[in-house]
Amino acid sequence: MNIFEQRESGVRSYSRRWPVVFSRATGSRLYDEDGRGWLDFFAGAGSLNYGHNNPVLKRALLDYIEHDGVTQALDMFTSARRELLETLHELVLRPRGLDHKVLFPGPGGANAVEAAMKLARTVTGRTEIVHFTNSFHGATLGALTVTGNPLHRRSAGLPLTGTTAVPFDGYDGHPRPEHLARMLAGPASGLDRPAAVVVETVQAEGGVNVASAEWLRALAELCREHGVLLIVDDIQAGCGRTGAFFSFEDAGVVPDLVCLSKSIGGYGLPLTLLLLRPELDVWRPGAHSGTFRGVNPAFVTATEALRVYWRDDVLEKSTRAKGEWVAHALGAIVAAHPGAGLATRGRGLIHGLVLGAGLADAVSDEASARGLLVETAGPYDEVVKLLPPLTVTDAELAEGLGILEESVRVVLGRAD
Amino acid sequence: MNIFEQRESGVRSYSRRWPVVFSRATGSRLYDEDGRGWLDFFAGAGSLNYGHNNPVLKRALLDYIEHDGVTQALDMFTSARRELLETLHELVLRPRGLDHKVLFPGPGGANAVEAAMKLARTVTGRTEIVHFTNSFHGATLGALTVTGNPLHRRSAGLPLTGTTAVPFDGYDGHPRPEHLARMLAGPASGLDRPAAVVVETVQAEGGVNVASAEWLRALAELCREHGVLLIVDDIQAGCGRTGAFFSFEDAGVVPDLVCLSKSIGGYGLPLTLLLLRPELDVWRPGAHSGTFRGVNPAFVTATEALRVYWRDDVLEKSTRAKGEWVAHALGAIVAAHPGAGLATRGRGLIHGLVLGAGLADAVSDEASARGLLVETAGPYDEVVKLLPPLTVTDAELAEGLGILEESVRVVLGRAD
Amino acid sequence: MNIFEQRESGVRSYSRRWPVVFSRATGSRLYDEDGRGWLDFFAGAGSLNYGHNNPVLKRALLDYIEHDGVTQALDMFTSARRELLETLHELVLRPRGLDHKVLFPGPGGANAVEAAMKLARTVTGRTEIVHFTNSFHGATLGALTVTGNPLHRRSAGLPLTGTTAVPFDGYDGHPRPEHLARMLAGPASGLDRPAAVVVETVQAEGGVNVASAEWLRALAELCREHGVLLIVDDIQAGCGRTGAFFSFEDAGVVPDLVCLSKSIGGYGLPLTLLLLRPELDVWRPGAHSGTFRGVNPAFVTATEALRVYWRDDVLEKSTRAKGEWVAHALGAIVAAHPGAGLATRGRGLIHGLVLGAGLADAVSDEASARGLLVETAGPYDEVVKLLPPLTVTDAELAEGLGILEESVRVVLGRAD
Amino acid sequence: MNIFEQRESGVRSYSRRWPVVFSRATGSRLYDEDGRGWLDFFAGAGSLNYGHNNPVLKRALLDYIEHDGVTQALDMFTSARRELLETLHELVLRPRGLDHKVLFPGPGGANAVEAAMKLARTVTGRTEIVHFTNSFHGATLGALTVTGNPLHRRSAGLPLTGTTAVPFDGYDGHPRPEHLARMLAGPASGLDRPAAVVVETVQAEGGVNVASAEWLRALAELCREHGVLLIVDDIQAGCGRTGAFFSFEDAGVVPDLVCLSKSIGGYGLPLTLLLLRPELDVWRPGAHSGTFRGVNPAFVTATEALRVYWRDDVLEKSTRAKGEWVAHALGAIVAAHPGAGLATRGRGLIHGLVLGAGLADAVSDEASARGLLVETAGPYDEVVKLLPPLTVTDAELAEGLGILEESVRVVLGRAD
Repeated sequence: MNIFEQRESGVRSYSRRWPVVFSRATGSRLYDEDGRGWLDFFAGAGSLNYGHNNPVLKRALLDYIEHDGVTQALDMFTSARRELLETLHELVLRPRGLDHKVLFPGPGGANAVEAAMKLARTVTGRTEIVHFTNSFHGATLGALTVTGNPLHRRSAGLPLTGTTAVPFDGYDGHPRPEHLARMLAGPASGLDRPAAVVVETVQAEGGVNVASAEWLRALAELCREHGVLLIVDDIQAGCGRTGAFFSFEDAGVVPDLVCLSKSIGGYGLPLTLLLLRPELDVWRPGAHSGTFRGVNPAFVTATEALRVYWRDDVLEKSTRAKGEWVAHALGAIVAAHPGAGLATRGRGLIHGLVLGAGLADAVSDEASARGLLVETAGPYDEVVKLLPPLTVTDAELAEGLGILEESVRVVLGRAD
Repeated sequence: MNIFEQRESGVRSYSRRWPVVFSRATGSRLYDEDGRGWLDFFAGAGSLNYGHNNPVLKRALLDYIEHDGVTQALDMFTSARRELLETLHELVLRPRGLDHKVLFPGPGGANAVEAAMKLARTVTGRTEIVHFTNSFHGATLGALTVTGNPLHRRSAGLPLTGTTAVPFDGYDGHPRPEHLARMLAGPASGLDRPAAVVVETVQAEGGVNVASAEWLRALAELCREHGVLLIVDDIQAGCGRTGAFFSFEDAGVVPDLVCLSKSIGGYGLPLTLLLLRPELDVWRPGAHSGTFRGVNPAFVTATEALRVYWRDDVLEKSTRAKGEWVAHALGAIVAAHPGAGLATRGRGLIHGLVLGAGLADAVSDEASARGLLVETAGPYDEVVKLLPPLTVTDAELAEGLGILEESVRVVLGRAD
Repeated sequence: MNIFEQRESGVRSYSRRWPVVFSRATGSRLYDEDGRGWLDFFAGAGSLNYGHNNPVLKRALLDYIEHDGVTQALDMFTSARRELLETLHELVLRPRGLDHKVLFPGPGGANAVEAAMKLARTVTGRTEIVHFTNSFHGATLGALTVTGNPLHRRSAGLPLTGTTAVPFDGYDGHPRPEHLARMLAGPASGLDRPAAVVVETVQAEGGVNVASAEWLRALAELCREHGVLLIVDDIQAGCGRTGAFFSFEDAGVVPDLVCLSKSIGGYGLPLTLLLLRPELDVWRPGAHSGTFRGVNPAFVTATEALRVYWRDDVLEKSTRAKGEWVAHALGAIVAAHPGAGLATRGRGLIHGLVLGAGLADAVSDEASARGLLVETAGPYDEVVKLLPPLTVTDAELAEGLGILEESVRVVLGRAD
Repeated sequence: MNIFEQRESGVRSYSRRWPVVFSRATGSRLYDEDGRGWLDFFAGAGSLNYGHNNPVLKRALLDYIEHDGVTQALDMFTSARRELLETLHELVLRPRGLDHKVLFPGPGGANAVEAAMKLARTVTGRTEIVHFTNSFHGATLGALTVTGNPLHRRSAGLPLTGTTAVPFDGYDGHPRPEHLARMLAGPASGLDRPAAVVVETVQAEGGVNVASAEWLRALAELCREHGVLLIVDDIQAGCGRTGAFFSFEDAGVVPDLVCLSKSIGGYGLPLTLLLLRPELDVWRPGAHSGTFRGVNPAFVTATEALRVYWRDDVLEKSTRAKGEWVAHALGAIVAAHPGAGLATRGRGLIHGLVLGAGLADAVSDEASARGLLVETAGPYDEVVKLLPPLTVTDAELAEGLGILEESVRVVLGRAD
């Protein structure tokens, strides 16, 4: 492991939690160089909804590469790009009544957030953008300005401007975005009318904070009322993570702009999309650019993933069912430790077990010792975040939840 | 082509210059759906230095995927990550006496620029960053603040702050960064001491403007003298494009931070690196993050590309020789049209033929009609930019230069 | 009036409400060029607490000028400067247990606000400053960033950054600064720990919004808890306007920085002070400067005003008593028009009668037609603001309240 | 002197150079409390062009106060305001063919600079403002962004944005604003088209740097060509300091906006004006405001000063003649010390003797010991700045220059 210590920047983080060298992966399992298998309830931070090296997607990918399909083509037309656009239209947008256009903003999720912010400001001629407490949207300068995490904010090295944070659902006990509503209503509130509001329906890094459907609807209504664009960052919660393809479907909300990344590529290759209402498509050619907007192998796996998993509602139903199972299991853990102050929250296959600062890390370590990879989240790293592949089998889910239950028991027992 | 018109954002640009649908590609050629081959002197805007679907890299990539090598692992340790670090160390850094550490800032080039800017500000505690006239560094907010291009700047939708542009080599006729030197020297010049200067040694998008070795050395010396960090954005000019692996080697300059992207991945898959002097590696774990910092297939092709092309100096010498050829051929075109105000400039296999606004686009169109893909660049799109794969064959080079010569002749003849 | 129309910028505003040319003034009355007297319940927007051309102050001023006392001396030592510092110390600071130092930030109120913001940022090394809904602190760039009024904000012509507005007492129904408390408590709230909070205890321009003592105490406690500096802008509410010399005395709060202007000069000549805790006095000599920091005639009248009015508690008691009278009278107006939605609020001799948009202006116009000058305030100009000199006689007060009562009656009668 | 040490902020600066307490003043002399007279070649940093307590202005001021003329009236119409507008029109604007409107931006010079910047941004819809090396325009946030002095810039406590500094005449050896011309010409220079350029024709604080008429004309032409507004900050160099009323008259330049303060009030009372071309007068009523925009005693002395000194060209001629005398005398000092590296520069009655860091302060101290008050200026405090009242008598001028000559001799002798 010497070379990592010697040559890689100390900013690396996940390799500190799991200091093993992984070499192979399939489905819900990673394998280290010693051949040990690890059950992965982290799933590339949500970028591997269909599991590691999903065999169907892999087949399509290999075929494409073997036949010298175009690999990289910026925003030039390619067959693979067309198929992705057609499939996305056919299987995702049209069935949901969405007439959004598709913008390829660059390879990473932050590119979608940056493009959405730029576009919202350009279209409205306003500069202010509202985000939420405990938000996380990326590490580029624009994305940092709408991120709550202080470690990330400080790393910018300069004051972050042009944005205002307001309470997310639950942060201030209000069932609606009360503070934002009041600030928008008052002509001299000191909050300039924003270009946009950017929101995660489930704040993953922020601690698996779930916005209720009511709150989301009130937010969307508020935006509509004040002519403010609604940007949903569905990078982690989208692509079926909460059940439906988009995390905002259950609330019946239609955002003006939607950021997709992580699992949209299907196979873990970088792909990012920005969906935008047609009337927002005002940029001149080339006004937003970037080299990796044409990673065609990712188009191929993205297309294949849509065809396999979103032609019907099998995955959606399965995710909801598994989600209920996880919720139930976590509820049982909470119930098993009355007085320990545990809590649980989540939607579909993103769930958090709130343990408290220190405890969550200890539980993650215990789970890791038992072969389960689970991350922590929240402002104090107080939440164990469960994010298994949506393709996790029942046996794997049972195994993972079992390890988690045991890890909690050990850690809390130790704490007594 | 309907779906592109209907569903893709109008911001797309290259597909306007070349409105064909490409499907396959090998070496220096792209093939459209009708089977027509196109000689590619654009090379993914410099992201395909080793050609399309280079067979050696392809073999390594297929092997890796077939054997279920880890695809996506954020910043977790993997075998592929280790091999890349080791190979980069062995074949690139150590032979050049560089002890820089490697930071994986995210998938796209802008991620490296953003990370470099953040880090420079964090380390120095200063906020100002200096960039150059006609610079281009990316489309995210931070990268935009160091970009000169007005179409890109305006797309931010808000004033770009924290940076100051100064003349690049040649912009003001000075053989050294005279203006910057004076502004740094004066205690009350109004330019706050900057955290960093960010520079491209060859401004590709800016019009193939080449900084001389003398100018670069004077810049580096100026930075050293004032305690200002030197960031070289070697995203387009690096990875052998100018001959040596790094574009700054010929000048004998050692930057504090180096941004690598585009061709570092070898195969056109997104990979981006930030090289930093060890003493700059001050970030706490997780202070900069991102999902696609562990695209392992790109690690594999990157490693293979280094092994194949950078174990010796064959490619470097070939690039320099071909570069001379191109320079000679362009010089002949210029000479063939006295009074037309043509000019040429470049280093290695990045060259520009300065034609004038309108004319360059016309020449690109003519070339395109003859099956050659060449882009235009410069603030007025007045330059035809030649960027063939470094692996271009002599026959292809002759063919491409022939088409270019003819295209210029046709366009200028028409203009008479 | 031609020259005003022809030569003065159209930005002038008070002369539109009262399009007469005033020439003389004494006590509570202004006289126009036709000799008509106007009862002044506007009092130079609070800069004439001791009335127009107060004879005692006038005598001191004339003496000083006649004897060639230094007029203008920047921040050089002068006898008049010393007397002011001694008197302020003796009669204001020491009796109240305040050990604040005195900084002369420039001639206008905004200079104190700007200096306080700069100093707070310098001392803490933080950049964010929190202000309140409906705040007004001045028209220079820094002051604008902490101002809620949209007409003023827009006039900056660029996005206002580095500050965040939060609800003032009453804005969101909370009896404490609940929102701010929550945002400060959450480590990832997205509100960076601020350098300072700047607050008016009574928002004058904002609509005569009165912060309760409880709210102010909670705010001060919150600041203390989080190491945030508390800046009270006592420019309009200080100098006895609410009864006590400082408007925050009743709440038992001790701000870190206090901005004084308007009536501190006593006679209406520009004088502005920034009081700061000794430990905040970190600036190097000359770090903040300005020409008009030594308007000695204003020092003389300021000193005299302190000697005459603040040697005992006669003025304070009288102001409180008159304030009760005004409150009672306004209460009666409200009661006389049940169902009209009137309301009243205020402290000491700053009171507002809430009438509604349009109506307040109409009442001001009616009052003006009857010889009474009263301004409107609030985000919709919905409040008639009463701000008589503290030296107003009982007869004048009765007269002014009578005119107001009648004006309201006429306007509401007309509205029926 | 105890109270100053104990109670006044340590930011005070002039009182450190001259630690005496002044009490009276007439003409070119200040008198301290011990009755010692000091010859004042500092003149309130240019705010006392007509000397201390000029008897004619004093008479007008006393009359006005004695007869209870309105003292403070914000922007209400008053007789004194009208007389000032009429007189300014009659004696200053009309004779010079200027149709500028007059805006009262607040009491201090920075208010004019802030208002000009705000207005330029509002009118053009652009945000960038260009200023010059070694500039000084004030201590409020907006003014700081166009100030070069690093002590002042740092005191802001946050990055200064929205502005770019370019070389003043002489800074880079160019006889024209070459750098700015090039940056404006290049479409992708990275300098966004500015709203305005703000310039001092003679940089007083910056070291008495004089812009040549040619340079100023080239600057004005450049602004016109690019639709950029030209703001001249004539706060220190205007009001006859260089001979003509405006410092830009000799160059034949007509700025779009002119900032006047300091001596415009005549007597040292705060008064500030912003002159603007009629087409720039776009602000809605109240868009820019402030309490001390109606200091009527200052209107009275301002009017009287115009009537006495600007009805004919006597003062202008006298200033030019005295200026030549000063230039000659300083030239003789330079000549008397060959090899000492002295130099001199200036226009009218603002002159600098360049001595070098440390030496200038020493000369100022020596002069002070001999009863002459002279300030230092420049980025290294390397220049002794002579700024006598324009009403200085020949005898006083001879005396002051004699003391200066002797002080230089003593200091340089000591240095040998």
